[in-house]
Amino acid sequence: MELFYSKTVSDGGRVLDAEESGHCVKVLRHRRGDTIHVVDGHGMLYDCTITDADPRAVAFEVNRWVENYGSHDYWLEMAVCPPKNIDRFEWFSEKATEIGVDRISPLFGDYSERKVFKPERIERLLVSAAKQSHKGAIPELAPATTVKEFLQQNREGLKLICYCDEATGKTDIKEVLSQVPAQSKITIMIGPEGDFSRAEVALAIERGWQPVSLGDSRLRIETAAIVAAAAVYLHFSH
Amino acid sequence: MELFYSKTVSDGGRVLDAEESGHCVKVLRHRRGDTIHVVDGHGMLYDCTITDADPRAVAFEVNRWVENYGSHDYWLEMAVCPPKNIDRFEWFSEKATEIGVDRISPLFGDYSERKVFKPERIERLLVSAAKQSHKGAIPELAPATTVKEFLQQNREGLKLICYCDEATGKTDIKEVLSQVPAQSKITIMIGPEGDFSRAEVALAIERGWQPVSLGDSRLRIETAAIVAAAAVYLHFSH
Repeated sequence: MELFYSKTVSDGGRVLDAEESGHCVKVLRHRRGDTIHVVDGHGMLYDCTITDADPRAVAFEVNRWVENYGSHDYWLEMAVCPPKNIDRFEWFSEKATEIGVDRISPLFGDYSERKVFKPERIERLLVSAAKQSHKGAIPELAPATTVKEFLQQNREGLKLICYCDEATGKTDIKEVLSQVPAQSKITIMIGPEGDFSRAEVALAIERGWQPVSLGDSRLRIETAAIVAAAAVYLHFSH
Repeated sequence: MELFYSKTVSDGGRVLDAEESGHCVKVLRHRRGDTIHVVDGHGMLYDCTITDADPRAVAFEVNRWVENYGSHDYWLEMAVCPPKNIDRFEWFSEKATEIGVDRISPLFGDYSERKVFKPERIERLLVSAAKQSHKGAIPELAPATTVKEFLQQNREGLKLICYCDEATGKTDIKEVLSQVPAQSKITIMIGPEGDFSRAEVALAIERGWQPVSLGDSRLRIETAAIVAAAAVYLHFSH
């Protein structure tokens, strides 16, 4: 069951955009009368019938809908310093979406090798990953910012910072998560290739972030991010 | 600290191969008298001093060594049906190595889209991923085989099969792992795009494999494989 994405359906829109329409009619060969399923990117899934199979503007009527399609029992923001090789951040974004993430926040750390971030490719990828993995909600992509600026933002919920340096005490992420109830809001920060700087870690702790360990393996940025997201996902799965 | 790989060092070999030597001398600019660290692919890490910085055949003497460098407290085999897009299997192989895996076994399922597997690229990737993530042991890459043939092999330890079909009872992977002590041997099977066939699941259960669930998200092959590997890794981390 392939999903279509519409920004307007929940506001009454009943026409797919050009890209979705082309895919619907020319690739998948849908015709008038076919059932299609449309998500709004915020959790709603609509069961629809095509009324006009125009390859540039498929029109449909809505039969019924469900809320929170493909949703999960927590709210998770992954704040990750994109590595130099942006493909790796793309892999992370796709896999985080499949697993279940609510917001992805690209950060520049003191020791980041990458100092620029172009959101367009990641935004398109998040849409296709959400559709492919049957999530009604597409993860938000926050504007890229520095670690220090991110730490100055007011933020509720559990705030975890993962870094490699041995000197500061860290708790295993499983232990921290074991105390966390369903519906919790969790944000996890993952540092750059060179790790977070001491100033960044000190500021994080001052701002209420808890240092956590992801175990003994030496993980790349995108691997650490997926292991952390998987830890949250697995904790809440049953 | 960049690692060098030598197949022969544990048998008394004291010369790096041409590829490692070129990287050592021409890229990293090592010279006679420099300290380098060499792994044998089976867990040994050697602290060495360069005696001849020949860019085609670096010679060294061994100062001291450690066993089980970068090792983990379990033995894990991931038996995974490579997806049609082999990049995704490469991505999985790299990330599984970083996290900690002992053997990767490519399988062809009844519903696999991919029916051929060329090991050479994955073998090279496993070596570089092990070096990059500071593991003295390089994961084994088993010869590719069919799911049915794999299930006929005699296999000790905990055997888990992950699949999507709702009909058969499955236990959450965390519950199964919670019973598992350190040093355990674990094998996890991940099915192809079309999932395992009923015949494959029935044979697996008959052969002592336990059906497990990886939660409610709809995960691609390589994502499911990494989430499963992460579940094992996180269970044993402390």
